Amino acid sequence: MKFSPRVDELIKALQCLPGVGPRSAQRMTFQLLERDRVAGTRLGEALSRAMSDVGHCQDCRTFTEQTRCPICDNPRRAEKGQLCVVESPADLLAIESSGQYDGRYFVLMGHLSPLDGIGPDDIGLDVLDRMLAEGPWQEIILATNPTVEGDATAQYIADMARQREIRVSRIAHGVPVGGELGYVDGTTLALSFSGRRDI
Amino acid sequence: MKFSPRVDELIKALQCLPGVGPRSAQRMTFQLLERDRVAGTRLGEALSRAMSDVGHCQDCRTFTEQTRCPICDNPRRAEKGQLCVVESPADLLAIESSGQYDGRYFVLMGHLSPLDGIGPDDIGLDVLDRMLAEGPWQEIILATNPTVEGDATAQYIADMARQREIRVSRIAHGVPVGGELGYVDGTTLALSFSGRRDI
Repeated sequence: MKFSPRVDELIKALQCLPGVGPRSAQRMTFQLLERDRVAGTRLGEALSRAMSDVGHCQDCRTFTEQTRCPICDNPRRAEKGQLCVVESPADLLAIESSGQYDGRYFVLMGHLSPLDGIGPDDIGLDVLDRMLAEGPWQEIILATNPTVEGDATAQYIADMARQREIRVSRIAHGVPVGGELGYVDGTTLALSFSGRRDI
Repeated sequence: MKFSPRVDELIKALQCLPGVGPRSAQRMTFQLLERDRVAGTRLGEALSRAMSDVGHCQDCRTFTEQTRCPICDNPRRAEKGQLCVVESPADLLAIESSGQYDGRYFVLMGHLSPLDGIGPDDIGLDVLDRMLAEGPWQEIILATNPTVEGDATAQYIADMARQREIRVSRIAHGVPVGGELGYVDGTTLALSFSGRRDI
């Protein structure tokens, strides 16, 4: 306790943020105290409000403080009958910012991982199954990560959709735009070959 | 507004922290919401309390929510009559954690910088002058940074102390322990030569 309980408390509390250790926490604390107490107070209030108010959308499970998120609430997003399944709200944001997709989402908040005890119900696949039954859906687009767990999760959901005779697709994996072939890993290159298309 | 006003508000508010841009703010927000709402709430409260309660020690000007900080309040820290002048609370913490100094401090909260309009009164040199007059002080140790502004500030305070006939010293600058001579800059090497001592 070098300064005061309040300052030490803040330095310790800031370390709950990812990527923030003791030194950065100290720098953040001093910066806020010296330069911008208004912003610090605003951040404190924003944190308290978000932690207590934000829950999950009853349909797509993304973060929202309403019952349904703005996307699920928008009837135009349901017009094409497309449902994109992603692992996390960050993935949803990334797809939204690409501006290429205007259907609905389903956010798993994780992926199947039997070794960690994460089964279908833990990632809301029971909710998804009810949504698929309620339809009508034209297409389920699987946009889980191209990892072992993400692929397994995609496979599992694809089986669910096929049972209900809904078209299922998986987003393409391959060489990213601007990437140089020499620096792309072998698995990605293999995927880009197996997924080649006639031009 | 992709999720909800509360989430967007938090992502924006987090960007007041030094070194936190939109991407890290988003990662922090999702991490707190998904994994650790208790820590997030605690951080919110710590921020609000610190921003409103923490002021400056009436003697040394460091951060504290009491009238005087624990160091100024400790009579044993005044026994040797040593006063160490530093630029910031972070410098004070660094010296404290070295465990080599057990006197009092004076925190300037900046340095003289006439070009930026920062004069003696802005860094509390009027308060320091009163402290020097009240004494008794055996030694003033100048631990401002070895920069142009830090050196000028040290020089200014040294003159103040000499007028009151108090001994003034400046911490040594030179090659840091563990540093390799080949990688040390020329100015530091020059200082380490001019400050050489007989062994």
